[in-house]
Amino acid sequence: MEGLEVSSPEFDLVVDLVGRLKARLIAKTVPGSEYTGWVTLPTDMMRHLNQVTALAEEARRRADAMVVVGIGGSYVGARAACEALGRGVDGVELLWAGWSLSPVMTRRLFDSLGGRDFTINVISKSGGTMEPALALRLLGEYARNRYGEGWIDRVIVTTDPSKGALRRWAGEHGITALDIPPSVGGRFSVLSPVGLLPLACAGIDVAALLSGALQMQHVTESNPLGDDPAVLYAAARCALEQQGRVVEVLTLPGPELHQFGEWWRQLAGESEGKHGAGIWPSLLTLTTDLHSVGQYLQDGRRMLQETFLAFDEIDGEPLIPASAPVADGLDLVANRPLGLVNRIALEGTRQAHRAGGVPGVTISTRRLDAQCLGALFYFFQVAVALTALFHGANPFDQPGVEAYKKSVKARLDSLA
Amino acid sequence: MEGLEVSSPEFDLVVDLVGRLKARLIAKTVPGSEYTGWVTLPTDMMRHLNQVTALAEEARRRADAMVVVGIGGSYVGARAACEALGRGVDGVELLWAGWSLSPVMTRRLFDSLGGRDFTINVISKSGGTMEPALALRLLGEYARNRYGEGWIDRVIVTTDPSKGALRRWAGEHGITALDIPPSVGGRFSVLSPVGLLPLACAGIDVAALLSGALQMQHVTESNPLGDDPAVLYAAARCALEQQGRVVEVLTLPGPELHQFGEWWRQLAGESEGKHGAGIWPSLLTLTTDLHSVGQYLQDGRRMLQETFLAFDEIDGEPLIPASAPVADGLDLVANRPLGLVNRIALEGTRQAHRAGGVPGVTISTRRLDAQCLGALFYFFQVAVALTALFHGANPFDQPGVEAYKKSVKARLDSLA
Repeated sequence: MEGLEVSSPEFDLVVDLVGRLKARLIAKTVPGSEYTGWVTLPTDMMRHLNQVTALAEEARRRADAMVVVGIGGSYVGARAACEALGRGVDGVELLWAGWSLSPVMTRRLFDSLGGRDFTINVISKSGGTMEPALALRLLGEYARNRYGEGWIDRVIVTTDPSKGALRRWAGEHGITALDIPPSVGGRFSVLSPVGLLPLACAGIDVAALLSGALQMQHVTESNPLGDDPAVLYAAARCALEQQGRVVEVLTLPGPELHQFGEWWRQLAGESEGKHGAGIWPSLLTLTTDLHSVGQYLQDGRRMLQETFLAFDEIDGEPLIPASAPVADGLDLVANRPLGLVNRIALEGTRQAHRAGGVPGVTISTRRLDAQCLGALFYFFQVAVALTALFHGANPFDQPGVEAYKKSVKARLDSLA
Repeated sequence: MEGLEVSSPEFDLVVDLVGRLKARLIAKTVPGSEYTGWVTLPTDMMRHLNQVTALAEEARRRADAMVVVGIGGSYVGARAACEALGRGVDGVELLWAGWSLSPVMTRRLFDSLGGRDFTINVISKSGGTMEPALALRLLGEYARNRYGEGWIDRVIVTTDPSKGALRRWAGEHGITALDIPPSVGGRFSVLSPVGLLPLACAGIDVAALLSGALQMQHVTESNPLGDDPAVLYAAARCALEQQGRVVEVLTLPGPELHQFGEWWRQLAGESEGKHGAGIWPSLLTLTTDLHSVGQYLQDGRRMLQETFLAFDEIDGEPLIPASAPVADGLDLVANRPLGLVNRIALEGTRQAHRAGGVPGVTISTRRLDAQCLGALFYFFQVAVALTALFHGANPFDQPGVEAYKKSVKARLDSLA
């Protein structure tokens, strides 16, 4: 933590309060406790892992692409892990549908499906969200033309265990269906079958992902108050917000983590933005955004706090060639790994932003792999839940989303 | 404009001040006037268009991919237009290098180049930016292995007309080089060869792009004060900022415009974030982010203003199939274009956010094509420049970026 008096009595007080909230979160005595099933999800999912990996193996045998139909928490976690880690050996390519209503993106999706075999994973807890429903109409028509009425054999549904239109559909047609635990909300569901099935299909080591999350679950459940990094991070962001740092910038070490940033933005924005309060979540991607909003961080309005995500191990390849086409003055880094320069850029940025008056914290983990990513998912879920609770909000509802849904529904009804 | 008293004496005053700044911008009597060459760039570039399109034609004959090496303003405008409009008939695929130091992204780039013929466009005004220089070392090594010493015949350089390492390199080896006008800074350069050459290679109608920009140039140069939409937009954002709306959310109608949003974020953040002031630029993509930070817009801290980007014409394809696999309650929109529902979602969101207390403006243009995109590029450049001037800042420098560069350089030097 930098630019923050971590040993001040004021900060100790916030840490103490957040730590108490964590104890209540685990004891299920906080607002929205009926939706805290994610706290023990790593343990619970370990028991269902075989079912997920067996389904994934079959999907990989049938096709080399899978269309994942979902929006918000039903898709962004899987996309985050997939873009960060890349497709594994024998993994299928994941394509995303139902995450917008854009005609342009829809046409591009169908163009990319042309001539390829694919399976479909439809993900919606309620089964009634508009975007995935419309995508399923379009995809169903396309798949029927390709595969005939048997197209539904290519579908796996991930939804509520007993309720909703998707569950009924699966039941009526004998479609394979995975459960989203009723106690786990969309944005806390990446470690459930919502995220695990597509990621297993993509050849990502979901056992390692879960084991990383499980390690953090143990930290959360066992550590007293201040020794829990999620408590410290939550306390830091709350303390900084109280000092007027109302925008948080999550600074990512590379573009491969952009979708991870989008996952975090959804988690934080939807959990905390309530009752006229909350930290506004924003992203900065190294080093490209240093040539963009970097200027603002250095010199703009002093309302920002910054959280750096860093990996300890330096990526060894590629090495920077000694031969320079252009006189670039960079012979010092010849034969060194590009990742070392990236790490140096992160350190330099951190120091420059701190000197420029942007306080914040750095979250370091070992390396960018499935295990560490699982730990990060869990870590941020705990920290964001605690921040919302510190604001006095229920972290697990989203009443504001209803306002827009109602407004859209009224307009759609008037088409009749 | 919504949630904003557009006929109040206070707003009239801001419009008047911003209008006067526009007159000074055109008369070149503002801070940084030596970098206002972009104001007449559409006119100027019309004369150089043949050179750009001839080079693009040759590049399209030689290979079906082009690696564009650049960062910040040297690449994001071209990427924005390319992702928004898609590759044209006979256009090459554009691949992006030098926009980060990420080893992961670098390996993925080389994987995607395997076995394909490519050309290279290196873009850097100074010729000395670290990221593109390191990318050129890596790409040079790779290209030499593929094409031998003749690889440099596949390179086109876009740089300062007389200065810098890239210009010298081009001169020494007879490499084709295009000029970035010295009076045009990186983030105002999309309508120069910086953006036009890669876009022409991608088969995008750059003449239409320029003609759209030219229309806006005429509006800017001829319209008195308040009749200029760029003046009104700049005045609205300044007035709202004075009322505590210090974060602006640019709400985009679909994910295909995400990189356009990144272009805007760079333009605004780097031009305005100075002297402890400025509006913090953020993005919201419809409809995916309604299931993300949408909750925050509706109910979070009331420090946001929102700018909607909208296209008047409804995209006609695809039509929503009448047959629904799942009982989704959406038969009302059967046989209607998906784009209509997307437009309804935009209207519903606008109304809901307004009712929730987020004031803002809507920028409407005809449709998502090269001409309208050219107009939007120009429009936002004028509006952002005027906003920075209203803050008393030089819109065209970026002193804060130097702080991070120095900090990184000191660390690199210590490697010796």
